Amino acid sequence: MKFNNRNVFISSSVKIGNNVRIGDSTVIYDNVVLEDNVTICNDCVIGEPRNEYYSDVNYQNPPTIIGKNSMIRSHSIIYANSTFGEGFSTGHRVTIRENSKFGKFCRIGTASDIQGHVEFGDYCWLHSNVHIGQKSTIGNFVFIYPYVVFTNDPHPPSNICVGPKIGDFSQVAVGTVVLPGVQIGRHCLIGAQSLVGKDVEDYQLVAGNPAKVLKDVRDLRSRETGKSHYPWPYTFDRGMPWDDIGFEKWKNDNGYIND
Amino acid sequence: MKFNNRNVFISSSVKIGNNVRIGDSTVIYDNVVLEDNVTICNDCVIGEPRNEYYSDVNYQNPPTIIGKNSMIRSHSIIYANSTFGEGFSTGHRVTIRENSKFGKFCRIGTASDIQGHVEFGDYCWLHSNVHIGQKSTIGNFVFIYPYVVFTNDPHPPSNICVGPKIGDFSQVAVGTVVLPGVQIGRHCLIGAQSLVGKDVEDYQLVAGNPAKVLKDVRDLRSRETGKSHYPWPYTFDRGMPWDDIGFEKWKNDNGYIND
Amino acid sequence: MKFNNRNVFISSSVKIGNNVRIGDSTVIYDNVVLEDNVTICNDCVIGEPRNEYYSDVNYQNPPTIIGKNSMIRSHSIIYANSTFGEGFSTGHRVTIRENSKFGKFCRIGTASDIQGHVEFGDYCWLHSNVHIGQKSTIGNFVFIYPYVVFTNDPHPPSNICVGPKIGDFSQVAVGTVVLPGVQIGRHCLIGAQSLVGKDVEDYQLVAGNPAKVLKDVRDLRSRETGKSHYPWPYTFDRGMPWDDIGFEKWKNDNGYIND
Repeated sequence: MKFNNRNVFISSSVKIGNNVRIGDSTVIYDNVVLEDNVTICNDCVIGEPRNEYYSDVNYQNPPTIIGKNSMIRSHSIIYANSTFGEGFSTGHRVTIRENSKFGKFCRIGTASDIQGHVEFGDYCWLHSNVHIGQKSTIGNFVFIYPYVVFTNDPHPPSNICVGPKIGDFSQVAVGTVVLPGVQIGRHCLIGAQSLVGKDVEDYQLVAGNPAKVLKDVRDLRSRETGKSHYPWPYTFDRGMPWDDIGFEKWKNDNGYIND
Repeated sequence: MKFNNRNVFISSSVKIGNNVRIGDSTVIYDNVVLEDNVTICNDCVIGEPRNEYYSDVNYQNPPTIIGKNSMIRSHSIIYANSTFGEGFSTGHRVTIRENSKFGKFCRIGTASDIQGHVEFGDYCWLHSNVHIGQKSTIGNFVFIYPYVVFTNDPHPPSNICVGPKIGDFSQVAVGTVVLPGVQIGRHCLIGAQSLVGKDVEDYQLVAGNPAKVLKDVRDLRSRETGKSHYPWPYTFDRGMPWDDIGFEKWKNDNGYIND
Repeated sequence: MKFNNRNVFISSSVKIGNNVRIGDSTVIYDNVVLEDNVTICNDCVIGEPRNEYYSDVNYQNPPTIIGKNSMIRSHSIIYANSTFGEGFSTGHRVTIRENSKFGKFCRIGTASDIQGHVEFGDYCWLHSNVHIGQKSTIGNFVFIYPYVVFTNDPHPPSNICVGPKIGDFSQVAVGTVVLPGVQIGRHCLIGAQSLVGKDVEDYQLVAGNPAKVLKDVRDLRSRETGKSHYPWPYTFDRGMPWDDIGFEKWKNDNGYIND
C-alpha cells in the first residue's frame, strides 16, 4: 500500500543505504545520510535547512544522520545537523530542531517537539506531545510521558538558556514541568502534573505543585504485590537490552554495576 | 476552491458512498468504507496500516468505517480497524490509532491524539489537543476540553494498561490529568488543571492537584442567575438531540429517565 | 533547496507582492494578499475557507492579509478573514482560525492553535503549543510560553464566550491556564503551571493552583545580581524596537511614558 514513490523529492547529495523505504510526498534535503533499513514514511521533511538558509545565499546544509533500522512516521520534520543512533523511531508530526543528538533505540511520540541543541542517551522513550527546550541533557533509559515540558529561561524573557539535566533510568510522568537548570538524578520518579523547581536526588519520588520529595522510590509499595516496582529495570524489560538475560546480569556486563 | 482531485490516491478496495468529497493530496488505504455525504479534506491519511504492515508481507488492512455525514478536516491521520458513527467530525491534524470505536455525532478537536483501543459513546465532544490513552472508555454526551490527558500505566514503565472510564454527561475541563483506572461517574464536572487520582461519584464537582470533591454540581450557583447550570442538559442544547423538544421530554423518550 | 514550485496551487484572485517565495505543496485560496518579501514554506494552507464554505454554494472567501516580511513555516493552516501585520512569523503546524488580528512583528510557535475571533497587539511572542480561545484580547509585547491555554466558557458547556484580556508587557509562563474573562494587567508575570481564576493587577507576580499574588515583580531579586529583572523591557531588547536606543528613550518616544 505504501511506498509508491509518488511526489518524493530527494537531493542528489543524500546518501541512502540498503533497503531504505521513503514514503510518498516526502522531501529529503542536502547532506542527509539514511543508513541501512531506514523507513521514512509519507509527508516528512528530513534535513530541513536551518534559519540561516533564508538569509545566507552561500548556505550549505550541514549533515543529518539517521541510524540503521530507524523509522520516522508521517508528517515529521527533522532539521539538519542532528544525529540519530540506530533503531530510532518517531510517531507522527514530530518536530526535531537542529543540533540534536540521540543515542541508540530512542523513541519519540506523536507531536513531540524537540527544540534542538539537546543531547539524549540511549533507550530514551518520549511519549506523545513532549516538549524539550534547548540545552536539555537527558541520560539513558529515561522515559518521559505526554505533555511534559522542559524549560530553560529562568527570568523570561532573557537571553539565558539553561536546560534541565536528567539522569539514567528516571521517569517523568504526564503533564509535568521541569524548570530551567533543574538537575534530576538517576532512578527518580516525578509524579504527574508536578512543577519541579529544585534538584532531585537519586531514587527520589517527587510530586506536586510545587513538587516535594515524597519518599524513596524503593519504598513505594504496590497494592497488589506489596513490593516496590522500582528500580524499574528489575521488573520491566520490554524493548530493553536486558530482555533476555535480566537486568541483574546485564548491568554487571554493561557498566551499571551500582544500579 | 477545494476538492480538485489533485494528487488524490485511493485504494481500489475502498467503498465510497454518494456525494463523498475527497480533498487534494489525501491518501485512502485498503478496505476503508466512506458512507454517504462524507467529506475528507486535504492531506489526510485514512486507513493508515497498523504497525504489523511493516514486518508482515501478508498483512491485510482491516476495515475502517466512516459513518455518513462525517467531516474529517485536513492533515488528519486515521488508522485502520476503527469505526465512526454518523456525523463524526474532526479538526485538523487529528491522530486516531487502530481499534477505536466512536458512536454517533462525536467531534474531535484539532491536534487531538486518540491512542487507539478506546470506546466512545454518542455525542462526545473533544476540544483541541486532548490525549486519550489506550483502554479508555467514555460514555455519551461527554465533553473534554483542551490539553486533558487520560493515562493508563499505574507504575511507569510497566505492561499494565488500565484506562479511565467516564460516565454520561460528564465534563472534564482544560488541562486536567485523569490517572490510570480512575472511574468518573455521570454528570460530573472536573475542574481545570486537576489531577484526578480517585474515583468520582455521580454529580460531583472535583478540582485541584490532587483533585478533591468540592460539592454536588447541582449546588453550584451562577452569580448571574442564582441557579445551577448543572445538570447541564437542561440548560444547553446546541447540537444535542433534544434541541427542539427539551431535555425533559427527550430523556423520557430515550432511556435517560433518571438524568 | 527549497521553493521549487512543485505542486503549488494558488487561486487566481491571490495578490502577490515582490520577492514572495512559496514552498512546495502549498495551497493559497481565494482573496489572500501576500505583501512584499513574504515567505510561505512547504505544505501550508493560506486562506482556508470558513465552515460556511461546506454548506453555502454562494460562499465567497473573505480576504486574508499577510504583512510584508512575514514568514509562515511549513504545515501551517491559516483561515480566511484574518490580518497579520508586518514581520509576522510562525513555527510549523500552526493553526490560526478566522477573524484573527495580529499587529506587527508577532511570532507564533510550532503547533500553536489560535481559535480565531482574537486580537493581538504588536510584538507578541507565543512559544510552541499555545492555545488561545476565541474572544481573547492580548496587548503589546506579551510573551506566552508553551502549553498555556486561554479559555472562554465559564460554565461548560454553554453558549457564553468571554475570553481573557492581558495587558502590555505581561509574561505567561509554561503550562498555565487562564480562566474565562480573567483580566491580567500590564507588566505581570504569571508563574509556570498556574491556574489563574481572578483578575491580576499591574506588575504582579502570581503563581500556583489556584494562582495567588506572591509579590510585585519589581521586588523579585536575582540571585546573581541582587536586582529585579522586571520590568523586563529595561533588561531585554533582542528583537524589540528599543534594541538600539534602550527602553528608557524608546518609551518616551512611543507613548509608553509610564512603563
